Amino acid sequence: MTLAVFRDPASVAVVGASDHPAKWGNWLARGAISAVHRRAVYLVNATASIVLDRPSYRRLSDLPEVPELVVLTIPASTAGVVVDEALELGVRGLIVISAGGFEEDLGKRVQAASARMIGPNCLGLYDAAAELRLAWGSFTAGSLGIVSQSGQLGVEIANLAAAQGIGVSRFVSVGNQTDVTIRDVLEDLVDHEPTRMVALYAEDFGDGRVLVRTVARLREAGKPTVLLTVGGSDASREAARSHTGALTAPLDVVDAACRAAGAIRVRTPAEAAAVAQLLLRTNPAGDRLAILADSGGQGAIAADLAIAAGLRVPRLSDALSAQLAQWLPEGATTRNPVDLAGAGEQDLGVYSRVAGMLTSSEEVDTVLLTGYFGSYGVDTATLQGRELEVVAELGPATVVHSMSESCSTVDALRNQGIPVYRDVDSALTALGGGVRSPRAVPRAMSRVGRLTGTVGSGYLAARELLSAIGVRFPAYAEVNGVVQLESLRAPYVLKADWLSHKSEAGGVVLGLTDRNEVVAAHADLVARIGPGRYVVEEMDTRPHVVEMIVGARRDPSFGPVVMVGAGGIEVELRRDTTVELAPVDSQQALEMLHRLRCAPLLDGWRGRSAVDKRGLADLIAAVSELITARPDIAEVELNPVRVTVDGPLAVDALVVEVS
Amino acid sequence: MTLAVFRDPASVAVVGASDHPAKWGNWLARGAISAVHRRAVYLVNATASIVLDRPSYRRLSDLPEVPELVVLTIPASTAGVVVDEALELGVRGLIVISAGGFEEDLGKRVQAASARMIGPNCLGLYDAAAELRLAWGSFTAGSLGIVSQSGQLGVEIANLAAAQGIGVSRFVSVGNQTDVTIRDVLEDLVDHEPTRMVALYAEDFGDGRVLVRTVARLREAGKPTVLLTVGGSDASREAARSHTGALTAPLDVVDAACRAAGAIRVRTPAEAAAVAQLLLRTNPAGDRLAILADSGGQGAIAADLAIAAGLRVPRLSDALSAQLAQWLPEGATTRNPVDLAGAGEQDLGVYSRVAGMLTSSEEVDTVLLTGYFGSYGVDTATLQGRELEVVAELGPATVVHSMSESCSTVDALRNQGIPVYRDVDSALTALGGGVRSPRAVPRAMSRVGRLTGTVGSGYLAARELLSAIGVRFPAYAEVNGVVQLESLRAPYVLKADWLSHKSEAGGVVLGLTDRNEVVAAHADLVARIGPGRYVVEEMDTRPHVVEMIVGARRDPSFGPVVMVGAGGIEVELRRDTTVELAPVDSQQALEMLHRLRCAPLLDGWRGRSAVDKRGLADLIAAVSELITARPDIAEVELNPVRVTVDGPLAVDALVVEVS
Repeated sequence: MTLAVFRDPASVAVVGASDHPAKWGNWLARGAISAVHRRAVYLVNATASIVLDRPSYRRLSDLPEVPELVVLTIPASTAGVVVDEALELGVRGLIVISAGGFEEDLGKRVQAASARMIGPNCLGLYDAAAELRLAWGSFTAGSLGIVSQSGQLGVEIANLAAAQGIGVSRFVSVGNQTDVTIRDVLEDLVDHEPTRMVALYAEDFGDGRVLVRTVARLREAGKPTVLLTVGGSDASREAARSHTGALTAPLDVVDAACRAAGAIRVRTPAEAAAVAQLLLRTNPAGDRLAILADSGGQGAIAADLAIAAGLRVPRLSDALSAQLAQWLPEGATTRNPVDLAGAGEQDLGVYSRVAGMLTSSEEVDTVLLTGYFGSYGVDTATLQGRELEVVAELGPATVVHSMSESCSTVDALRNQGIPVYRDVDSALTALGGGVRSPRAVPRAMSRVGRLTGTVGSGYLAARELLSAIGVRFPAYAEVNGVVQLESLRAPYVLKADWLSHKSEAGGVVLGLTDRNEVVAAHADLVARIGPGRYVVEEMDTRPHVVEMIVGARRDPSFGPVVMVGAGGIEVELRRDTTVELAPVDSQQALEMLHRLRCAPLLDGWRGRSAVDKRGLADLIAAVSELITARPDIAEVELNPVRVTVDGPLAVDALVVEVS
Repeated sequence: MTLAVFRDPASVAVVGASDHPAKWGNWLARGAISAVHRRAVYLVNATASIVLDRPSYRRLSDLPEVPELVVLTIPASTAGVVVDEALELGVRGLIVISAGGFEEDLGKRVQAASARMIGPNCLGLYDAAAELRLAWGSFTAGSLGIVSQSGQLGVEIANLAAAQGIGVSRFVSVGNQTDVTIRDVLEDLVDHEPTRMVALYAEDFGDGRVLVRTVARLREAGKPTVLLTVGGSDASREAARSHTGALTAPLDVVDAACRAAGAIRVRTPAEAAAVAQLLLRTNPAGDRLAILADSGGQGAIAADLAIAAGLRVPRLSDALSAQLAQWLPEGATTRNPVDLAGAGEQDLGVYSRVAGMLTSSEEVDTVLLTGYFGSYGVDTATLQGRELEVVAELGPATVVHSMSESCSTVDALRNQGIPVYRDVDSALTALGGGVRSPRAVPRAMSRVGRLTGTVGSGYLAARELLSAIGVRFPAYAEVNGVVQLESLRAPYVLKADWLSHKSEAGGVVLGLTDRNEVVAAHADLVARIGPGRYVVEEMDTRPHVVEMIVGARRDPSFGPVVMVGAGGIEVELRRDTTVELAPVDSQQALEMLHRLRCAPLLDGWRGRSAVDKRGLADLIAAVSELITARPDIAEVELNPVRVTVDGPLAVDALVVEVS
């Protein structure tokens, strides 16, 4: 059912309206009243007959009509009863600010009545175009949609955006999501015309796959989403869990979901606001940045931050450098960063002239102007007019960090669609997020049919399952009383089939050269860890091996995911892994490999030949399809996968059934 | 010679004083005039007789007295002549704002006249207590000393600090440092009473060891230094180089120097200002942070950022948690983060009560109050008085992030010595830097006498040098026509003595089992890479080896440094190394090992026994003493050093002479 009732209702009632300025009911009633020219507004108060100089009603049933939308700011203890009263009257929309204990079937009662409810335990709803001011907080109208699982964080994003001249099109604090969910609200924003981008704060993701599709639909409608979430630390997970009762998904999976959805993850409200300012004012075509500074030091600081933010600061060509040098004093740097070295002070026109040469050069995508510009008019009133003329000459691919935060020059820049930041940190955080945006298109994911099957226990069962999808293992023989080595090439490895972490448990013996050694090792293992199924395998002795780990698991929110990284026994120490939502195809798997720090090992490290990266990518894709097709599999792990020029060879494997 | 003339001169002359509001000479003349009640101020202009309604002089020699301090804002083409005129008159202090080409011997001329000069190419000097306003920029008086190699960056730090209520005690833009250097200015701040901490921007460090000692003296005088520098990217290095003509020292060495000096490195002017606000208002006793939020989401975001900033967010004890719960609604989290869950709204006193329980608990060192507090009075005028009462009850170990940036509550908090930040990012950046501060005490460095000696060429020479300081190597024999294996245990390694990177060059053969194999490998090497000195060594086949790299080199600024990290051929990929100024003792070397990501390998990874970490630390200390004692050695590298329970064994070594 749509959220149409929350778009532009013809009538609104505020239950709990109050004259007391420190009460929520006062704030919300004043917000509702501010749009009486547009819709009928009814105030309801159980004891007063006049509130805010308007007639007030004792109960909803006293109203002259059934309001389309009802906002409740009364204590939770009575709110449930009022919700039922509203539903009985035929109210279609409810916003329940009230926090506290509600009956578990509250949502069911709302849905049974074909109504919709935002909350409970929320800060409400604001819609600029519809003049719906039914939320705590002061909003200015604009193009940013804010959807937040924490109302106050949503308000903080709005405040920080407002300080940058960015207003809000729609604000929805979803609270407990008893009926209306984050996903419903996002879906509703796809065709909400005034909303041009979305800032989302979420602590849990419900069905993450559905959310990914919704965010991708927003992206396809030209509305990028910045996502703020928590879970980077145990402490934050504890806070989030107790706040919502839901598990916070680990951040690496969230990042994979963002790649799949074309969303941009940020770490803080300030970063969300900075990225919003960037993308609502400009649209970086790529990651090549020119830095234009009126101080060498500021240019250098910006360059360090740009590289750290994932941007490129390309060295400018001889031709462009020479062209710039004509306008700059001797000794000014012209390679990038470009340092005006005092030229701007002599002639403000140098700013727009040099910026123009850079933006039209095709050597960079964006120009960051950093430093003093924006302050000339503030410090010297006679320069104000000239500074504004220069602003008018600046092109669209410009981003400004100005030492003056708010002044008419900064306002003029922003009016012209040029983002302006008061510290260079924010400018580059925004650019770092922003340049991910054009590339952050929803990722195509192939469809994989569901399969059934059984997962046996132990290494041989895992081998069998994985061999069937094309994973190569060494030749092996089972040890059944006698040791059969006829078909195997020395040296050998002896393994206990049933142990998950064989090396640590002492369940594997390497480098056995002949039957005698194998027999002795077997006897020793039986004595140490007991009888059971043992396997003897050819030991992989190929030179120039790169050891990788390939794994897959089922995330509680986002479903099957696939992982690859630097393998071996130091996996946890090296922490050089990357994850994607499954399935991935071979090309996407290759892109995963490129992201690893150990990627150069695969391409031939220090004179060695490159290994079979394509074969490894095929293996990753196969594992990702397996976990997707087989809902009975909880986890797959191949570690190490030994990769050489001849391809990947898995020498240990684990498959875990869903319990 | 001291900088006394720049402290509080009895007379000042501004050469280049101007009526034109867009000229520097106007700004500086107005600044000088603002203190006419305190000192004689003379304006000098080559053509005007009245400037800023005051009599003006054509040249310095026309003045009724010789001014103590002269500021020059005239073009560089004439500034040299005026400097000479001033020196001839007996002027003791010069500030040369003018930028451009000066004679190379300008500094010598100043020094020969027993005068001192700041600049040229600088933005000048400001001293709050002395009312010396001889710099571009508007400063408010305070306790922060700013010393900057880039004047404009220094002004930016001052502006950002002012926005947080932090003023400046002294600002010195050192420009080209032709006479007065950064180090001179820092030294002068040690006994500059109003300065309580220092923000330093430096692109090059001159004699870095001397600078380290000066910053350490400031630290010992209770004045911590935050250092802003560049060099994190090639682009910034290019910018810095061309700005100053000096090399930018690599950042890892700078960090080592900061540890040695007790300084705090920051990445941006905003971070410098944030840390300054923290340390000028409070003094975190340790890294244990309690987060007190009035929104679960904001608490969780803060926890993530705290962990990322290197703070601890300890889980609170059952007793403290129960004590907090008495004041909070059911379901409020009380473990850390602590979420007020609406309690503050009902009774503002809960803020100070809960914060007080946390600060007095001894379970944490600092309380971060994050969210809405500070906004009650703004949103609801009737709450202003109560909010201010609560402020007065807050203890000193409190740091606040408030959604309201500037209001009387925020002012009251700051007046009470409580740092307040407008975004939680800045609060935690500051705390992350600030908690490094109490631990950032200057590091004791033992004295090492100078030694002389010779460095031969090749592996055997390096072995000899390093064996003499106690480094263990495998037993070896030189291959001289005949192959002598009598005293060696198989398997063997054959090496070309003269190659620096033996593996990549194919100059090493491993795993030779007998004389025949050694002879054949030798013949093969001679055929492939030519005749020369070959060495046969016992191959290290001890199990459970951790491969490390130990190195030392001579940094152009900071002198000898020592490095340790994860070794082997993937050193550059793993980038798991740490560096300190040399020498280090064994204890300091152990602390270096603790900083490595691979540290757990040394302590016994996944069931293995711990290796001889103390032996490795002794080796690091010995190498650090060698590079310190022997100025003829440019570089030492041991890679890999194979470490087991039996101690470290170096299996390749390189010593490079200073060329």
